[in-house]
This record gives sequence, C-alpha cells and structure tokens, in this order.
Amino acid sequence: MTQTGSTLSMQRAEPASGAALIALDWGTTSLRAYLFDANGAVLETRASTAGIMNLPRPAAEGGFDAAFDAAVGAWLDRSPELPVIAAGMVGSAQGWKEAPYVNTPASADALVDGIVRVQTARGVPLNIVPGVLQNGELPNVMRGEETQIFGALACAAASGAAASAAGKGVLIGLPGTHAKWVMVRDAKIERFHTFMTGEVFAALTEHTILGRTMVTPDRPDTDAFLRGVRVAREKGQPGVLATIFSTRTLGLTAQLTREQQPDYLSGLLIGHELGGLEAALAQQQSTLAGRSLQLIGNEALCERYVLALDQFGCHRAELVRHATERGLWRIATQAGLVGEASGAAQAN
Amino acid sequence: MTQTGSTLSMQRAEPASGAALIALDWGTTSLRAYLFDANGAVLETRASTAGIMNLPRPAAEGGFDAAFDAAVGAWLDRSPELPVIAAGMVGSAQGWKEAPYVNTPASADALVDGIVRVQTARGVPLNIVPGVLQNGELPNVMRGEETQIFGALACAAASGAAASAAGKGVLIGLPGTHAKWVMVRDAKIERFHTFMTGEVFAALTEHTILGRTMVTPDRPDTDAFLRGVRVAREKGQPGVLATIFSTRTLGLTAQLTREQQPDYLSGLLIGHELGGLEAALAQQQSTLAGRSLQLIGNEALCERYVLALDQFGCHRAELVRHATERGLWRIATQAGLVGEASGAAQAN
Repeated sequence: MTQTGSTLSMQRAEPASGAALIALDWGTTSLRAYLFDANGAVLETRASTAGIMNLPRPAAEGGFDAAFDAAVGAWLDRSPELPVIAAGMVGSAQGWKEAPYVNTPASADALVDGIVRVQTARGVPLNIVPGVLQNGELPNVMRGEETQIFGALACAAASGAAASAAGKGVLIGLPGTHAKWVMVRDAKIERFHTFMTGEVFAALTEHTILGRTMVTPDRPDTDAFLRGVRVAREKGQPGVLATIFSTRTLGLTAQLTREQQPDYLSGLLIGHELGGLEAALAQQQSTLAGRSLQLIGNEALCERYVLALDQFGCHRAELVRHATERGLWRIATQAGLVGEASGAAQAN
Repeated sequence: MTQTGSTLSMQRAEPASGAALIALDWGTTSLRAYLFDANGAVLETRASTAGIMNLPRPAAEGGFDAAFDAAVGAWLDRSPELPVIAAGMVGSAQGWKEAPYVNTPASADALVDGIVRVQTARGVPLNIVPGVLQNGELPNVMRGEETQIFGALACAAASGAAASAAGKGVLIGLPGTHAKWVMVRDAKIERFHTFMTGEVFAALTEHTILGRTMVTPDRPDTDAFLRGVRVAREKGQPGVLATIFSTRTLGLTAQLTREQQPDYLSGLLIGHELGGLEAALAQQQSTLAGRSLQLIGNEALCERYVLALDQFGCHRAELVRHATERGLWRIATQAGLVGEASGAAQAN
C-alpha cells in the first residue's frame, strides 16, 4: 500500500482479495476511508486531511476527484467494481453533491431512501448518505452523526442491549466541535440538540482575554476540570457568559494556576452543556440522573464527559467504538450495496 | 487647542482660565481626558486611542508619560498646578502603577483611601483610583466601572431618586465588552457579576462558523434582535452553547437572512446575560420584573438592553449620561484634590 501526500494508511488484515465495500467518512477537515470484506470486517483504513474545506485543489478543478483518488484509488485499481458509500459534509451544499436532509423522526430506511449518487471521474458511482434535519423554532442539522448513531444502534442491537431501551428511548452523546445529543426512539432519530462547546472553547482560548493567562498543561488536570463542572452545576450561577470570566479572576486571585485554567474552562463549558441538556430533558419529563447513555467520539474527550456526567448522577455512560465504520456498513447493507452476509455484528 | 497624533479634541466651554481639575478615564484601548472648572463643569475633553495596551511607545521607554503628555500636556502647560486623577486599567498590574483592589462592600471613601500616586516625568503627581474586588468562589473585578457607579449615584443623589431606593439597593448595568451588573446598597458596591457578552459576540462572529453566513446590516434589525431575546428566555431552552447554533440553522432553513443573523445572535447573548442575571437575583429573593435600574455606557448598546429588559418585565431602565466625568469629579472632590465648591450636581 502506498502513501500519497498527507495520507496516512494502516493495514488491518489481509490484503484486499476479499474486499466488498469502500466506505468514506468525509467531513470538513478530514477524510477517512474503510475497506470492508463481505462479512463487514475492516480490512484496511486510510486517513487524510482532505476534508471538503481542505481539498488538494479547488472543487471546480476536480478537487473532489483528486481527494477521492488519493484516498481510495489504490483499492479501486485492485477491485474496480467495489461499491463506494460516503457520509458527512461531502453531502452538504458545499460538498461534492448535495444530499438533501431527511427530516426527523429519521429511520435508517429513510437515510437509505435519501442516498444521492455522484459519478466520479474514474466511473465509479459514489453513494452519499444524507444528513438529518429537525425543523422548528430552533432547527438542528447533522451530517455524519446519523451514520454513527445507526452504527451504535447496530452494535447495541447485536448485544441485545437496545431491545429493553427501545420503548423509553436511547440517549446518545457525540462530543466534539459541535457536540450533538440525540434521542433515538423506535430506531428513529427523534430529536437532537447541537452544542457549540468545542468551537466555543477554541474561540475563547484563542481569541479572548481568557487565553492570555493560560498555559497548556503537560497532562489534563482532572481536579481543575471537575471544579469547572461543579461551578456550572451550582444553583443560581449566573450562566456561562459570566462563569467563564472566573477562569481569569481565579487566576488574578491566585486560586487557579495558569496551567489549570484550560481544564477549568473545559469543565465549565462541558458542565454548562450538560446543564442545558438537563433543562431540555426536563421538558420531556426526563433527566440525566440514573440514566444510561452512549457516547461516540474521541476517546479522551469522551472520558471527560464520563467524569462530568458522573457529577450529574449519570453513572452509566458507555463508549461505543467504531460507530462510524459500523454505521457505514449497516447503511450500505440496508441499501443493497453489499450482500447481507453475516452482517454488522462482526465489524471490528 | 492642538491635536496630537490620533487625539481628537472637543471644546465644551470657555478656555481653561478657570480650570480646577484634570481627570482621566484610562482604559485598555482608549484614554479620555476631562478638564473641569471649580464647579465641576467640564470645560474641555480630549480622547485618544492610547489605552494601556496601545501606548505610543513601550511602557519601559516612557510610554505612559508620552501618552499622558499628548493627552493633557497642553492643559498642564497653561495651568501647571492642576491636580490630576485617573481611573481604569491604568491602575492594573499592567498599568502605570498598580492600585490594589478595594474589597466589596466598597464605598467611595474606601476608593479615596486606596488612591495610589505615580510621579509623572513633568513632575505632576497622577492620582490613580483603585478598582474593586469581590472575592469568593467566583471572584469578580472591576477597574473604571466603580468610578462610573459613584458618578451615577451622585447624579441620583442630586435628583433625590436614590434616597427611597437606598434600603433595597440600586441595580446598575454597564453593558460592553465585559458587561457588569452591580448591586449597590447603602452607597456601597455590595456585589457584582461580569458577563463576557461583548467579547463573546466578537469571538463568535469573527472566529466561528456562525460568522461565515453573516452579513452586517445597514441598520440594526430590532425584530431579529427581539427574536433572539425571546429564544433565550424560553423555558427549557438548552442554554447559550446550543441556542447560538440556531443562528446558522435558521439561515440554512431560510428563516433568517444573512443580514438578520448578527442582530439575532446579539439578542440571544443579551437575553442569556439577562437570564443569568435573573438566576443570580433569584438567589437574593429578587427579580428583574418590576424593578427600576440604571444603565451606563454606549447609548446605542444601552438602548438594546432597554429593549431586552422590557421582555423581562423591567420597564424602568434609565440611561445615566456622563457617569464617568461625574464619578471622577466626585472622587477627586472627596479626596480633597479640589475644593467642594458647589459640587457634583453641576457636572454636565
């Protein structure tokens, strides 16, 4: 296997003799490619920075084809007939071809029905999974997360864990730049919220006075993080626009070192995110306390959420690994791009 | 009167024959100077961009003296014996000389006692008013606002309005980059909060995805602003980290034009600020509804707050003009820098 440009590659199993599907997780700033065998096991993966806002050349000059070839051209050279599926921002208005949003409540079947095809320069059609829209006074959109969610549900279904939860709904959190919290009921994405926690953290630390007194610590400071979570949870606290200023004033009054300030601010923001989620859940006569839920995303970040959720009385937050691959495999299978074989439970 | 560098000047009355005091409002990015007569009337004002982070040359190379001379040298040439007072970030650790914070509850007398003197190169001493610190789990600091507050109180005392409110306390809002909400009781700054509303608005519009779909309108869109305030006030809304994302999704779903997005976001943030203030007031068995309060600051911004406060049932928000000059005059008088004469009530 060759490495092209910024592309990293990793071999997971035997070469592609038994390849059955190529699947892409194609976001704004990154592109991940998976090669599956007919049983849904991942044979190889490739990752690059060629997100839709970071193509090797402009879209009008064939940038999408160039990124596509760099990522999966070698696989297609060996197996030109492989079906290819993609999820993420590649289906947005700024992507290769727009796959219009599917409305909530959104089932996996509705996603399959909404798949849009784009013809690549090498003749292979690319099947793009649509995102999900929850319309209303505070609309919400996702692209890519819907696929991860159905991957997580496939995993839960395989383990039998989802069956009992089907009636009261499954809550899934996807921490990140734009964190999502999604309620799934009867195998449909029913309702969700987007919290700009990650992007706000970056903007505050890089572009406000709060960053000026901060020093990035060698390793995360859990105590400082939990202190931030506790402040955000306090009754009568004046809200995140005010509590964040304490990152600076606790420094001014020698109660927080420069190295503690990033984790404290992170704890504040994640604490306020979960507080906001609590308020929204309360409208549905629900709460975080005592609930079990699933987390999808970067493992270190998910671990922070596990710590924070614990403060909210939620002690059963389970990390779901490989949700993206599982979801892409599941939707491709459901769309008839690959035979059902022995299916999603075997995706590793 | 001459104009030096970026300094603007404005003549307000007769030349400085009857001058009695020079007062400076010296912040991070701006410097304003006032020349008073013995009755507390402003004779002349000068403004420059020579804030403490924007000196004409580095502080170690006499930057403070250079800015001082450019701003008030002409006045001191004519009247070398004039007393000079300053408030604001010039007294911070990054300022000319640190004037240590006075703790809450802070009276005007305590501020006078905390005045720190620095000798200028031209021999005139500069009297620097200290800021105020409210220590505790969420510490708060101010520098400059304390002077505006005592200016506003002087104004209210002169009009007799404060007398009846003295017992239950006066609430004063100072909108801006770091908005302050201050509770004054028995002529002391008792408690306050800082909301980073202005700086967060700038960071969100300039450094996050929200700015990408925004176009600055020709004039403010009050409907879009009030829509944002209403969303922030809604029961069960998931908090500001989530509601701000609707600035984008309402655009994606054609419910908000690009030109409406800045005012909508402004309404969201100010609405969340006032919601946070409500939560903090509730801890003191108080509320915004039915309360009368004072606002100090940029007039257009204060007008936005008046509109937003109206949504919170607070219909008596009064703008206090010239609070800075009045406060500087009052503290200088109380410090014995000028004779009492006929005092603050005549400051225009």
